[in-house]
Amino acid sequence: MPVNYTPPAPDSLLPVAGVRLGTAAARIKSWQRDDVLLVALDEGTAAAGVFTKNRFCAAPVTVCRRHLAPATHPDARIRALVYNAGNANAGTGVAGIADAERTCAAVAGALGCRPHEVLPFSTGVIMEPLPVEKIVAALPVAQAALAPDRWFAAVSAIMTTDTVPKGASRRADVGGVAVTVTGIAKGSGMIHPDMATMLAFVATDAPIAAGVLRALAADIAEVSFNCATVDGDTSTNDSFVLAATGKAPLAPIVRLDDPRVPAMRRALTEVAIELAQALVRDGEGATKFMTIAVEGGHDAAECRRIALGIAHSPLVKTAFFASDPNLGRIVCAIGNAAAPDLDPSLVSFWLGDVLVVDRGGRAGSYREEDGQRVMKGEEIAVRVALGRGSARATVWTCDFSHDYVSINADYRS
Amino acid sequence: MPVNYTPPAPDSLLPVAGVRLGTAAARIKSWQRDDVLLVALDEGTAAAGVFTKNRFCAAPVTVCRRHLAPATHPDARIRALVYNAGNANAGTGVAGIADAERTCAAVAGALGCRPHEVLPFSTGVIMEPLPVEKIVAALPVAQAALAPDRWFAAVSAIMTTDTVPKGASRRADVGGVAVTVTGIAKGSGMIHPDMATMLAFVATDAPIAAGVLRALAADIAEVSFNCATVDGDTSTNDSFVLAATGKAPLAPIVRLDDPRVPAMRRALTEVAIELAQALVRDGEGATKFMTIAVEGGHDAAECRRIALGIAHSPLVKTAFFASDPNLGRIVCAIGNAAAPDLDPSLVSFWLGDVLVVDRGGRAGSYREEDGQRVMKGEEIAVRVALGRGSARATVWTCDFSHDYVSINADYRS
Repeated sequence: MPVNYTPPAPDSLLPVAGVRLGTAAARIKSWQRDDVLLVALDEGTAAAGVFTKNRFCAAPVTVCRRHLAPATHPDARIRALVYNAGNANAGTGVAGIADAERTCAAVAGALGCRPHEVLPFSTGVIMEPLPVEKIVAALPVAQAALAPDRWFAAVSAIMTTDTVPKGASRRADVGGVAVTVTGIAKGSGMIHPDMATMLAFVATDAPIAAGVLRALAADIAEVSFNCATVDGDTSTNDSFVLAATGKAPLAPIVRLDDPRVPAMRRALTEVAIELAQALVRDGEGATKFMTIAVEGGHDAAECRRIALGIAHSPLVKTAFFASDPNLGRIVCAIGNAAAPDLDPSLVSFWLGDVLVVDRGGRAGSYREEDGQRVMKGEEIAVRVALGRGSARATVWTCDFSHDYVSINADYRS
Repeated sequence: MPVNYTPPAPDSLLPVAGVRLGTAAARIKSWQRDDVLLVALDEGTAAAGVFTKNRFCAAPVTVCRRHLAPATHPDARIRALVYNAGNANAGTGVAGIADAERTCAAVAGALGCRPHEVLPFSTGVIMEPLPVEKIVAALPVAQAALAPDRWFAAVSAIMTTDTVPKGASRRADVGGVAVTVTGIAKGSGMIHPDMATMLAFVATDAPIAAGVLRALAADIAEVSFNCATVDGDTSTNDSFVLAATGKAPLAPIVRLDDPRVPAMRRALTEVAIELAQALVRDGEGATKFMTIAVEGGHDAAECRRIALGIAHSPLVKTAFFASDPNLGRIVCAIGNAAAPDLDPSLVSFWLGDVLVVDRGGRAGSYREEDGQRVMKGEEIAVRVALGRGSARATVWTCDFSHDYVSINADYRS
């Protein structure tokens, strides 16, 4: 069960004009459910992506990067996305890339577009050959099912260890016109900034030119998906794609300094943050949702490094699971992640509203029962003040439970 | 139960001339056992230490560093070590340092030496005031118990979540004279290079001058304790102290290029490696012992970073726990830790003697049952070849089990 997250009602995910979705069962694993998703995008749609930094990136990520390369495809026109769950097509070498291209070619043939206008995505077990025949064979069923109102079914088809489908929608007034933003995301383990085992797709009917869309995708990933971490492992397949169909009756947004950009950015960011937090709330075995905010650093990178140090410490995460205000483990994690010149005697931190460490030592006012009260909650805020600058950073994470071990020890069986 | 580790028989830890050990029960926690250790060193003993790099280092570490500072104490003469379990005296600010100094002063008064000739060590819960009165009150009992043959009792008194006492001895021929090396260590969680929540003490009766001893301590830590990792958390208290009493009938070793140094180094290193591996074998919740060797890198730092990337991945560690040859998780961990310019198509790796990934892709010869056979063992070797240089590095780690979560969720209760 996710922490304080109710999955969207199937009809709460708003259709985006120009986007149709269809699913099918390719039976890649023994699941009794759909595991292939086809997304058809109307002509004129631009797309931009942010992908994993893992050096062993998966074949579909390599193919996505090629198909979105600004040098070769400056307009970033994309007509379809094709997803499968159950096999990541990662660690599969040149054969894996050929398989991903083959899937794109099959989709292109079915929809009547060019193969480079198709983006492939895979999630699941790594280092096993992609069952490309099964996926291609399932495409006609997915194509026949294409419809604008199938966002919920779409995200359900790409889940792996997720316990609930995750999606979000917003309506926004952009330049006097109501535009729609809808996004979906999957992933609940191997989740870490830059990016998660995470596939996220956010679409809008606003007309946004390729260059602006690329800048928005990068900026939004930085403040949403790249702030979410479950276990510190960055997957081979992480992909966040932002698509703009241009169907809304609005003049195209072609420059980042267009006065309509802030409203557009806000709606897209809200959807992305809601999805990113939902991934953490549904983190493998999660029983608590933690917001780790570090302020007062020299620069944002320092704050982020310390926030991640806390978020990734197995000792901190197990203490959160136990609702144990084990302050020492947080202090220890700060000390490990800090730069050599950090002065511990300037560092303070709070659990919720409770001052715990006051300039390097246990706060005189701190009482164990106050820490206990905060730790018993399902939502826990940790705030650290480094006392030497004005930069800040925030990450979201979850605790480390028995179920995390069970889920990850049993996943392949 | 540790993985393939039998604790030393009480009489197998050889006395070291010039070292006497005594324990007492200060009742720092509700344990029904001794929790204070006093080590008395004969006049003329030199000592050197390697300590945690955690920025929030504990008060006793600060005091040890002062008492061993070459500028103030060039000869590194040390007459006593005093340890307590149950409280780490970390995150305790200036009061903690005063408490550690007060313990040293009490020991100095009892043994008739100077306070700066005493080194203090603490292990246990962080951020709670040290019950210094209890420790001081227990010293007379520990002093009355001082004897050369109490190494086993000594290490038993400083255990925390350790399940067995850990110690090792060697006899070595150094320049035609038989010298003795005996060491003890505690620690089973929060264990990570630079260093572990680990207190290790290794003594020899050989006469080794301060400068040589410092160089040996640093070198030996690098190839022993700094290669051991349980959970990636570096504690606030880690300390490795090497003492040379000079009681053996041997001319002093005053230079690193003395021809007797290699034999001396070998004996000390063997004891340190045996202790370091014992810490991992007794890692919290460990069911498997893994040796991760990375070769073919540009430099040792690159190899070490990738080895630690594999060793610290919760997904890899849970797969080892499940005896699951989940190759993808290892590939993923390599890809996360690798430098941006690493070429995945040159990378190969082996599980035991089984070639799994051959230059970037699954090896044609690989069969799941072969990987399964290796993973079912209690001792698992992972070897990674980066294919771009001649540097190498090795780390030892353990798996991540349900018991790790239980131990760390319940530790304070």
